[in-house]
Amino acid sequence: MRILVLNGPNLNLLGRREPDVYGSVTLKDINESLLFLAGELDVDLEFYQSNHEGDLVDKLHAVMGECSAVVFNPGAFTHYSYALRDAVTTIGIPVIEVHLSNIHARKEFRHLSVIAPVAAGQIVGLGPQGYLLGLQAAVALARDAVMADGLASAE
Amino acid sequence: MRILVLNGPNLNLLGRREPDVYGSVTLKDINESLLFLAGELDVDLEFYQSNHEGDLVDKLHAVMGECSAVVFNPGAFTHYSYALRDAVTTIGIPVIEVHLSNIHARKEFRHLSVIAPVAAGQIVGLGPQGYLLGLQAAVALARDAVMADGLASAE
Amino acid sequence: MRILVLNGPNLNLLGRREPDVYGSVTLKDINESLLFLAGELDVDLEFYQSNHEGDLVDKLHAVMGECSAVVFNPGAFTHYSYALRDAVTTIGIPVIEVHLSNIHARKEFRHLSVIAPVAAGQIVGLGPQGYLLGLQAAVALARDAVMADGLASAE
Amino acid sequence: MRILVLNGPNLNLLGRREPDVYGSVTLKDINESLLFLAGELDVDLEFYQSNHEGDLVDKLHAVMGECSAVVFNPGAFTHYSYALRDAVTTIGIPVIEVHLSNIHARKEFRHLSVIAPVAAGQIVGLGPQGYLLGLQAAVALARDAVMADGLASAE
Amino acid sequence: MRILVLNGPNLNLLGRREPDVYGSVTLKDINESLLFLAGELDVDLEFYQSNHEGDLVDKLHAVMGECSAVVFNPGAFTHYSYALRDAVTTIGIPVIEVHLSNIHARKEFRHLSVIAPVAAGQIVGLGPQGYLLGLQAAVALARDAVMADGLASAE
Amino acid sequence: MRILVLNGPNLNLLGRREPDVYGSVTLKDINESLLFLAGELDVDLEFYQSNHEGDLVDKLHAVMGECSAVVFNPGAFTHYSYALRDAVTTIGIPVIEVHLSNIHARKEFRHLSVIAPVAAGQIVGLGPQGYLLGLQAAVALARDAVMADGLASAE
Amino acid sequence: MRILVLNGPNLNLLGRREPDVYGSVTLKDINESLLFLAGELDVDLEFYQSNHEGDLVDKLHAVMGECSAVVFNPGAFTHYSYALRDAVTTIGIPVIEVHLSNIHARKEFRHLSVIAPVAAGQIVGLGPQGYLLGLQAAVALARDAVMADGLASAE
Amino acid sequence: MRILVLNGPNLNLLGRREPDVYGSVTLKDINESLLFLAGELDVDLEFYQSNHEGDLVDKLHAVMGECSAVVFNPGAFTHYSYALRDAVTTIGIPVIEVHLSNIHARKEFRHLSVIAPVAAGQIVGLGPQGYLLGLQAAVALARDAVMADGLASAE
Amino acid sequence: MRILVLNGPNLNLLGRREPDVYGSVTLKDINESLLFLAGELDVDLEFYQSNHEGDLVDKLHAVMGECSAVVFNPGAFTHYSYALRDAVTTIGIPVIEVHLSNIHARKEFRHLSVIAPVAAGQIVGLGPQGYLLGLQAAVALARDAVMADGLASAE
Amino acid sequence: MRILVLNGPNLNLLGRREPDVYGSVTLKDINESLLFLAGELDVDLEFYQSNHEGDLVDKLHAVMGECSAVVFNPGAFTHYSYALRDAVTTIGIPVIEVHLSNIHARKEFRHLSVIAPVAAGQIVGLGPQGYLLGLQAAVALARDAVMADGLASAE
Amino acid sequence: MRILVLNGPNLNLLGRREPDVYGSVTLKDINESLLFLAGELDVDLEFYQSNHEGDLVDKLHAVMGECSAVVFNPGAFTHYSYALRDAVTTIGIPVIEVHLSNIHARKEFRHLSVIAPVAAGQIVGLGPQGYLLGLQAAVALARDAVMADGLASAE
Amino acid sequence: MRILVLNGPNLNLLGRREPDVYGSVTLKDINESLLFLAGELDVDLEFYQSNHEGDLVDKLHAVMGECSAVVFNPGAFTHYSYALRDAVTTIGIPVIEVHLSNIHARKEFRHLSVIAPVAAGQIVGLGPQGYLLGLQAAVALARDAVMADGLASAE
Repeated sequence: MRILVLNGPNLNLLGRREPDVYGSVTLKDINESLLFLAGELDVDLEFYQSNHEGDLVDKLHAVMGECSAVVFNPGAFTHYSYALRDAVTTIGIPVIEVHLSNIHARKEFRHLSVIAPVAAGQIVGLGPQGYLLGLQAAVALARDAVMADGLASAE
Repeated sequence: MRILVLNGPNLNLLGRREPDVYGSVTLKDINESLLFLAGELDVDLEFYQSNHEGDLVDKLHAVMGECSAVVFNPGAFTHYSYALRDAVTTIGIPVIEVHLSNIHARKEFRHLSVIAPVAAGQIVGLGPQGYLLGLQAAVALARDAVMADGLASAE
Repeated sequence: MRILVLNGPNLNLLGRREPDVYGSVTLKDINESLLFLAGELDVDLEFYQSNHEGDLVDKLHAVMGECSAVVFNPGAFTHYSYALRDAVTTIGIPVIEVHLSNIHARKEFRHLSVIAPVAAGQIVGLGPQGYLLGLQAAVALARDAVMADGLASAE
Repeated sequence: MRILVLNGPNLNLLGRREPDVYGSVTLKDINESLLFLAGELDVDLEFYQSNHEGDLVDKLHAVMGECSAVVFNPGAFTHYSYALRDAVTTIGIPVIEVHLSNIHARKEFRHLSVIAPVAAGQIVGLGPQGYLLGLQAAVALARDAVMADGLASAE
Repeated sequence: MRILVLNGPNLNLLGRREPDVYGSVTLKDINESLLFLAGELDVDLEFYQSNHEGDLVDKLHAVMGECSAVVFNPGAFTHYSYALRDAVTTIGIPVIEVHLSNIHARKEFRHLSVIAPVAAGQIVGLGPQGYLLGLQAAVALARDAVMADGLASAE
Repeated sequence: MRILVLNGPNLNLLGRREPDVYGSVTLKDINESLLFLAGELDVDLEFYQSNHEGDLVDKLHAVMGECSAVVFNPGAFTHYSYALRDAVTTIGIPVIEVHLSNIHARKEFRHLSVIAPVAAGQIVGLGPQGYLLGLQAAVALARDAVMADGLASAE
Repeated sequence: MRILVLNGPNLNLLGRREPDVYGSVTLKDINESLLFLAGELDVDLEFYQSNHEGDLVDKLHAVMGECSAVVFNPGAFTHYSYALRDAVTTIGIPVIEVHLSNIHARKEFRHLSVIAPVAAGQIVGLGPQGYLLGLQAAVALARDAVMADGLASAE
Repeated sequence: MRILVLNGPNLNLLGRREPDVYGSVTLKDINESLLFLAGELDVDLEFYQSNHEGDLVDKLHAVMGECSAVVFNPGAFTHYSYALRDAVTTIGIPVIEVHLSNIHARKEFRHLSVIAPVAAGQIVGLGPQGYLLGLQAAVALARDAVMADGLASAE
Repeated sequence: MRILVLNGPNLNLLGRREPDVYGSVTLKDINESLLFLAGELDVDLEFYQSNHEGDLVDKLHAVMGECSAVVFNPGAFTHYSYALRDAVTTIGIPVIEVHLSNIHARKEFRHLSVIAPVAAGQIVGLGPQGYLLGLQAAVALARDAVMADGLASAE
Repeated sequence: MRILVLNGPNLNLLGRREPDVYGSVTLKDINESLLFLAGELDVDLEFYQSNHEGDLVDKLHAVMGECSAVVFNPGAFTHYSYALRDAVTTIGIPVIEVHLSNIHARKEFRHLSVIAPVAAGQIVGLGPQGYLLGLQAAVALARDAVMADGLASAE
Repeated sequence: MRILVLNGPNLNLLGRREPDVYGSVTLKDINESLLFLAGELDVDLEFYQSNHEGDLVDKLHAVMGECSAVVFNPGAFTHYSYALRDAVTTIGIPVIEVHLSNIHARKEFRHLSVIAPVAAGQIVGLGPQGYLLGLQAAVALARDAVMADGLASAE
Repeated sequence: MRILVLNGPNLNLLGRREPDVYGSVTLKDINESLLFLAGELDVDLEFYQSNHEGDLVDKLHAVMGECSAVVFNPGAFTHYSYALRDAVTTIGIPVIEVHLSNIHARKEFRHLSVIAPVAAGQIVGLGPQGYLLGLQAAVALARDAVMADGLASAE
């Protein structure tokens, strides 16, 4: 089982960007913790980050049939990218939306996620740990889907 | 006379995406019907699809002087891409906006098109046939423009 | 197969009304083009225009069982007549909404159609040609329905 | 004592119209139940249905001095006919507004009644029984008014 | 020169309707004062009142070429009849909108006139005298138009 | 068959509270009329009033399996208690919402009922008689449900 | 009898300001026409113009007991000066609000008059003639008040 | 270390309430899973559920000094209980907000959480697993706080 | 004369709660100052605080006939408890609303008080002194009422 | 210690203006009560009233260094004068906002105070007594400031 | 060539007012820098500051024909003075709007400038340097206008 | 010192695009003027234009440590690209936002800049000169920062 860990714009600079809001942990640090947990959960991970909305859409399309779930921090695209929302719907695999900061305690435009209504779930404000919880959720949902498929094909 | 048929994000997966909303016809099927109709109307077609807003803007710029009209399904960019809206205004050739589904019968955010106010016309909810009607409209508008230019240069 | 061509308030004065917005073509001109196309498509047409919302509702009721589809320009009723919207839903045959001008490029109150969510499709901003495209769409939808009924009764 | 039972647009097709929303009972069935109840309550009924807003206004004017109360289902006019609202205010007799379906559980535009603020009361979502309850309420209000007038003239 | 005096729904009951808002003067009283003033101004008047939106649209169409201006109290249609608004625009002669009561001092829905933006002028809150002032304004505007036409044809 | 008659905050003071809005009838008077009608309809009644939102939620939970329907005047909780709304949905038996005054003719905040969308029906503005009509509606709905269950178990 | 003709900010430059909106007539021209009409109506006029909100408030206070009515064009103060609104209410004599242009056909912020709800009436969009009509209305209202006072003191 | 698991209105009926939205797992089932995980994490749990807003506020006050963090599903109070929001702020220990269903994919009133801006984090749409992830997050936050206090007192 | 001093949710923790907003004074401190002032003013005080909306409603009902006025800080209930608003209206004695902090300088949801429109007065942002000023106001209003009653019964 | 008592537009006519809203007490009466109280509190008062926004700004600037606090009734400027708001911020001494009537129980535009967010406190709806309470609050705040300054300079 | 440097309310206290927002530079300091730059640009300057909206309107009127452009910081009038907006339109010379602070990063009411839509340009958030940049822009615009006039008169 | 001059979508066609709005100057013309001014100011320039949001984000990231400030015209991205807004915040160097046209005088959607709240300053409506002023501002801000850093490292 393979899980995509997808990060949107400006997250490549995590740790250098507004440390009072996002802390000093880098994306590389987070990915290493995720790899360690993935080992324990016995799943493979694929990492992808881009500042380009179109690249993120392309990536979501590309993992159809290869990945079983997605852990996704859409960054600022959270608030307006209906193209990413449609991509999430199109690919038909569970997507867990993760935000490092508590978007509900920040400026009003950050309260709305156009992606949340089509995500499987959302984890907000728990910092880097949010990714780890998101991976657990993604694996659990993907395994439920696999089990359901297995049962279905057994019938 | 040459017409650009332009498609936005996630339309590359048409037929695989939410078939209850969009049906099982693929973009390739639609393009073939368009080619057949183009033969009858004696016009050339150019096809382009991208999930990248910037690529669609670049394409619209590129066909200035080469294409006489555009049949355009902007997908989810319909609802927020003011960059595409400005591109449509900038190139100064008629653009027919097409939507497969009836966007007015779906979620509220899909009711608003930021591109429609600068399009020549809009065709909504008629499925793949909408593209064929859009091509007829595009050709008619382009021929009117050619005729007007011919008259003008004859004066 | 019979199709109703229905026009709402002030369209009887088309050609005399705001020619910079609506052009100089009259409703009679449009109807003649429609008759010509109807001949090619091998369908009968019925024409009706009224400035009375109640007459338009009555007409929609009256053609149940007689007409297979409707091409409908509701004029200003587009923006507030929930009675016409309910009539469209009630009669259960496909209705194609047509507007001569691009309502999205005009005053804000014209952007909203209360009828569009229950119409089969909508064609906007293409002038008199919009009616011709609307007739094609109406015939195609009506023939699909006939075919589906035929298949169903054959089962 | 005479009561007007007034029905607005599309209610003539009740039973044929969206049966999942409105059921299969016809307006004729409802009127027969009302006549039976009217016999028990010892009042006369007058029935009127129209798809024309103006006809409903005229009818309300016409029953001044003849009817003592009105049971009124304004259909879609509920949501925008300020002319009917003014007519209700003008005639000065109690009007009970009735809706078959629960308008608060349907689309947002159906939540607002422009007539309710000037009606004596409103009964929503109870199907055909709503008319019967409305008739009881109308008779009770009309009898109170008669009694008050009687007392006043006795003073 | 001929002027149309047009009155909308419920104004036939003026004097009987909410006397604390509209006073006890009847429409007949107002029309008589208008006739007296018309004599002084040397113009003919035509009177029309209806509770039917469609009848008012038809009447506006019918006086094209016969009347030079309109004094119009649209009653409750003021607040939602875009069909009447379009009729006012279509006929191309000056329309003076008159309201007996101060609509800005009443309920919020009465503050908005959808007709005012296309009327030549609006007179609000001056009771029956508003019609007299409206007639003066209508005549002045019509005479200016006649004079302008005279000058134009003299050129 | 047993029906719950449930009243929300401040209704214990009915008759002492704003008599110009709510009249001088007390809750005890209303309950006595309801008992009389219940005798005629051959049903048992249970009465409960509380100023505590949580008590009303608890009561609705407690009557599951014991009562077949509810006549409910939520008082001011009507306008904001999503907890009561969820309780109504949770218990799965028909609830008839009753208001003594015409909430649509009062201050704007009283126009919205957050409970109405999940109630079976709503009766507004008919004073104490509203409870009696509500009881009739509740009994009718409950008997339909019983009959449907009987038929289902007979299959 | 004395009438105040009051003009707000920028009206001193009338004729020099945006002639396409306001025409080339100056405030002096208007005042001369008003004087002529005042002669016919046998009333005295007092003229005052200021660009200072406070001066206009002071002037309204100062004419209490001296003037019987006011013809008032508040200019841009129309849209936000609650101080002037309160002054109009305070002085208790009829104020006729006049606007040269049709404020409802201009930018949205000009649609709202915070003074209209407390004015006796409003005349909009009739150019300089609006002042003349306003003076007639002011005189009529003032004479009615005088007559009512006369009757009252005669009792 | 002790953690409070707090549940709001109607959650006592979990498993019986709208199973298509909330599933058939009961609150007791969830609490047992939490106890198992708490054993692994070496923390004590305290469980509390109430349909009374005031009881939940009292409980939050009562655990000050006794519990180190809270896992809280406020049920419908999520959307309007500013009293609970203030209680969360007052007690000054981390609160993790959990929702079983994806509130962003449901009715609009469920999109807004008045508690989220003052919660430490929020987990949405992951069903019963959301509580388990919430417990992990609560323990991690509480341990960080303990460590920070330890360091502070060591300085 | 007896005055009720009523405090809503979370005020029991005053002095422990967000000291930068509310200061370090406790509710006990405030009550002692109030007792001292009450001695000077020669009135009795009754103190009540609860985190339960229903308890506050019950308390307001209970003091009818016993207390002459209320000094009330509704805490967070200020912003949504229409039940408390109705209780204030129901009991018919003057209620002075007090807030320690300047609610207009805090988050937007704190700007709206649903209770203020039915309170006798409101004192905002003056810290503990606000209660003392509120008590003075309450006593003055109550004495006026007593004096008015005395005069009335003497007549 | 010196306190400025500042009054805005139309308050010069207090007692003559809308006595049902504002009572018959004049500004002079209020000022005399204030002088009496000032004697007891051992402070000097300075009185200023103007209908000119600019004069009020100038006055606030002028008392810097001379007055220690301000009791301010901004009249209608309350609702839109951001210039006065900025002046209050600029001068850096405590300002107590006072309103005679309950602005929250009046028209909607009176609910918003643009000055309240920067005032030290606000007293609403207590009639002339509000000024007396305001003076007490102003003196208390000013004395605290003096004491704090004294302590600071003693350090 | 002469340029008006115009400053609105509270700017006379610049340097004393909220130094964390506006810095410690005074208006006199700014004017001296402007004079130095004016020497380099070979233009004359005229300075005017007032806290009175009417004075600023009068000043703008007065410089017609004398000054060629205006550098204008309207202070708080920015957000509501439609009178100043109209004055800017009326005088027909270019006006450059300048703000010391970044109004878009401050409170929401400061985001809207009612003057910006009619200004030639706007410079925001650059502190005192904004005035210097504004002067350069004003001179450039004025010289373009002069040159255009020269060309026009040369034709 | 090096400054980035960054241009967003459709600005590559400047001079060909809507010349009535944007004039006939090309981006190359502007860049040449900027180079000339840069020579005078003794700074280096780097130019970049793209129609791709992601490319602009990448570019902003890339110049960290290389450029000291940015002159940025985001084109249509101004109105919705929160990704660019976050990029501006992330890189921590001053960004001057420039718009050729007066965005406040155009369609409403162009009034809002989501980038302005995090920009150092904004220059609007001054045509190509706006870039020159922007460069001056950028250099001044960058030099201040350098000086501040120099001072800091000297301490």
